[in-house]
Amino acid sequence: MLKRVIAYAHELLENSVKPGETVIDGTCGNGNDSLFLSNLVGSDGNVLAFDIQEQAINNTRKLLENEAKNNVTLIQESHHKILEYLNEDQRERIGGAIFNLGYLPGSDKEIITKPESTISAIEVIGSFLKPGGIIVLVVYHGHPGGELEKEELLNHLGKYDQKKFNVVRYGFINQKNSPPFVLAIEKK
Amino acid sequence: MLKRVIAYAHELLENSVKPGETVIDGTCGNGNDSLFLSNLVGSDGNVLAFDIQEQAINNTRKLLENEAKNNVTLIQESHHKILEYLNEDQRERIGGAIFNLGYLPGSDKEIITKPESTISAIEVIGSFLKPGGIIVLVVYHGHPGGELEKEELLNHLGKYDQKKFNVVRYGFINQKNSPPFVLAIEKK
Repeated sequence: MLKRVIAYAHELLENSVKPGETVIDGTCGNGNDSLFLSNLVGSDGNVLAFDIQEQAINNTRKLLENEAKNNVTLIQESHHKILEYLNEDQRERIGGAIFNLGYLPGSDKEIITKPESTISAIEVIGSFLKPGGIIVLVVYHGHPGGELEKEELLNHLGKYDQKKFNVVRYGFINQKNSPPFVLAIEKK
Repeated sequence: MLKRVIAYAHELLENSVKPGETVIDGTCGNGNDSLFLSNLVGSDGNVLAFDIQEQAINNTRKLLENEAKNNVTLIQESHHKILEYLNEDQRERIGGAIFNLGYLPGSDKEIITKPESTISAIEVIGSFLKPGGIIVLVVYHGHPGGELEKEELLNHLGKYDQKKFNVVRYGFINQKNSPPFVLAIEKK
């Protein structure tokens, strides 16, 4: 069966992230991906989870507490400042990352991810990503500003050197209401 | 690891085609997909393999003879005439199909698949496809005429009723020389 977009995004990380690694949730939102990553890296691993919104940080904290997870560091900050939050070891090797691009479901639709900060975060993570590691972007683009971010990302990632990275696009083309699609960046 | 396009195309069929089924190779070319499908459906199944070029039919016949396969019917005809070649049973249930769109590698680049006949073949197969069955299109589009076929297919399949079909696009976006991508049509 053709995989749903979220299932495909998670499968890519399940197949590439190993226990004990440091991984990034670029947009923790309601915490589902932070919890998913927390389980993947296990008690010896670390998740750095970013979000600019207090509501997102609080929702994620609550979810993780309910699941008794203590390997996630919540950072209320734009993901483009990620470099400041990586220690020496983490700068050597990041296991993977996920971003949900768009707005926080159930919140203010005017607070959205922006192409320049998204791209900036991807560049930093890409430089520290392990060979075979994957950055997964789940691109929601039905909201105002979403189409611009989508186009800038496609344009930017389409120019990535194919000797250094593979970039795949995966998504359904016959669904109404601009469903999200996946952009996956794999380091060679 | 992010799957190559051909590996992804084959995986979709491996996961949906069952032994004993009738399946379609819409463009047998040099016979690789016919052989692949022949193995999937086994000795109780059937492969109908179409190509308009004698060279393709001959190449495929040779490959299948070398592999001692006798469950493939080679048909030198455009795939848009497929309906004429389906018997009553086959009209009830097709297990899956694959098309390589473009020109026959190593042959005349002016003999190419055309959007209207490709779409016509897809419509027929789609109407007889089993629920959960998949039509896989590997879209080569770097040749003259290729861009047109790509755009017409995307436009046509993008309008498929999402209650009846899922249509996925999968491909690398940062490779030189217009690499092929996959369009996969799954019947619900």
